[in-house]
Amino acid sequence: MNRLCVHTITTKPLTLQQCLLEFPKRGVSGITIWRQMLEGCDLAQVKRQTLGAGLELVSLCRGGFFPAATASGRQIAIDDNLLAIEQAHAIGAPLIVLVCGAIPGQSLTESRKQIADGLAAILPVAEQAGVKLAIEPLHPMYADDRSAVNTMRQAHEICDVLGSPKLLGIAVDVYHVWWDPELKGQIDLAGRTGRLHAFHICDWKTPTIDLLNDRGLMDEGCINIRLISDWVDATGFTGHREVEIFSHRWWATDQAKFLDEISTSYAKLYDDDVKVNL
Amino acid sequence: MNRLCVHTITTKPLTLQQCLLEFPKRGVSGITIWRQMLEGCDLAQVKRQTLGAGLELVSLCRGGFFPAATASGRQIAIDDNLLAIEQAHAIGAPLIVLVCGAIPGQSLTESRKQIADGLAAILPVAEQAGVKLAIEPLHPMYADDRSAVNTMRQAHEICDVLGSPKLLGIAVDVYHVWWDPELKGQIDLAGRTGRLHAFHICDWKTPTIDLLNDRGLMDEGCINIRLISDWVDATGFTGHREVEIFSHRWWATDQAKFLDEISTSYAKLYDDDVKVNL
Repeated sequence: MNRLCVHTITTKPLTLQQCLLEFPKRGVSGITIWRQMLEGCDLAQVKRQTLGAGLELVSLCRGGFFPAATASGRQIAIDDNLLAIEQAHAIGAPLIVLVCGAIPGQSLTESRKQIADGLAAILPVAEQAGVKLAIEPLHPMYADDRSAVNTMRQAHEICDVLGSPKLLGIAVDVYHVWWDPELKGQIDLAGRTGRLHAFHICDWKTPTIDLLNDRGLMDEGCINIRLISDWVDATGFTGHREVEIFSHRWWATDQAKFLDEISTSYAKLYDDDVKVNL
Repeated sequence: MNRLCVHTITTKPLTLQQCLLEFPKRGVSGITIWRQMLEGCDLAQVKRQTLGAGLELVSLCRGGFFPAATASGRQIAIDDNLLAIEQAHAIGAPLIVLVCGAIPGQSLTESRKQIADGLAAILPVAEQAGVKLAIEPLHPMYADDRSAVNTMRQAHEICDVLGSPKLLGIAVDVYHVWWDPELKGQIDLAGRTGRLHAFHICDWKTPTIDLLNDRGLMDEGCINIRLISDWVDATGFTGHREVEIFSHRWWATDQAKFLDEISTSYAKLYDDDVKVNL
């Protein structure tokens, strides 16, 4: 088994069934399912089908979005995260990735407090379900309305504040953190503290023409993905490298060919991950 | 005299002559001139005209862009910065704002080293000319090709490495640094070390539809500009608040009306800056 995982959002035009069929053909060994794919699905069947396709279910994307202007808004967010835990448990996903949320105009400090409160509310249920949670620090350009957690340091601080529960960790996505001068030290720390729960890859294009949906395939941009990857592995991390690409450009192309490109690009980047059979 | 300054790039469709005519009508007391406006101009005349218009010349934008793939490329950058110092001296601008530069694919650490080397090369000339320099930390979304200096902490580190020359400081632009959890502490430090050379304002819109040219007028976005402004003033800073807005949307409107909006927005934000006479 190689360590290549693809997020269903990466091949957004494909149905879950198509992902389950197409991913393994390219040597993809893991899948991260985005929640919108589960709408109206029999979750037990999703679990069976994923296993049947020979894919390891790496994580469920995404929970979070805890901050809200009102207490009732924050309760709705908590309820949605509890639902996500149920879904993850039902499909056999060991981990939920959290995009923590932010409210434009609300101070980031207050949003981070609400994020910690929201996490505290769902942690016991996650523990009971045996589902891990990963805070994904988001690039500072998403600090307005997507996440008040913009560095690994802040993610660590939230884990600390909550008493370092074992199941709470961090998802490292190179797109969000590649610029951070503290990155190596914070990855090391995540390793030492058992918090390195997930590793996402894609690339930063120059120019980037859309804040949300113009991510690049590995090697299309300026991120030294392999270097960051090596830092991650040096902590003892042996999990999947998850290809998570939001791209209007790639979504507009033939997704089978895009998957070919992903495999090729992955194999080039990780030529020592010899078990890729294309 | 109030503390309102406008950058010529903010009203990009206007000529320098139009800026000199229109800015004072709205109670603007300071001007920051962008270098492209100086092309083909008699610099001594620019100096006289600016003074004649009753405007304080706050700074010249912009120098920097020190990193390059080759030694000759870095020398061209140094030469261009030396020219900027000459220009600043000639028009009577006490300060040059530096967008420090970055090369896609070159490590940010290497780019920061090249930035420090470039600064070291121009500092003696700047000192001789009596022109101050301000490193402007740019938002991490510009780390690919605009600046490897993305936080105030990094700007301080470069000042430290160069032996803290008095004329070298930092330009704080709320757009670039508002998300930084260390912001208040780093502003305090800039105050204590005499490095707080300039303060730029605008707003972060939600959604932001263009990475470069979709900045908001104050109060159009989520930045708590007044809070950051108060932190800046608490250090003893009494300089101008410089309105620097890159916006296709605003540039497409009537610039006289836009200047009215800037004045109104400024007066609302700084209702204690009583010398605004609109």
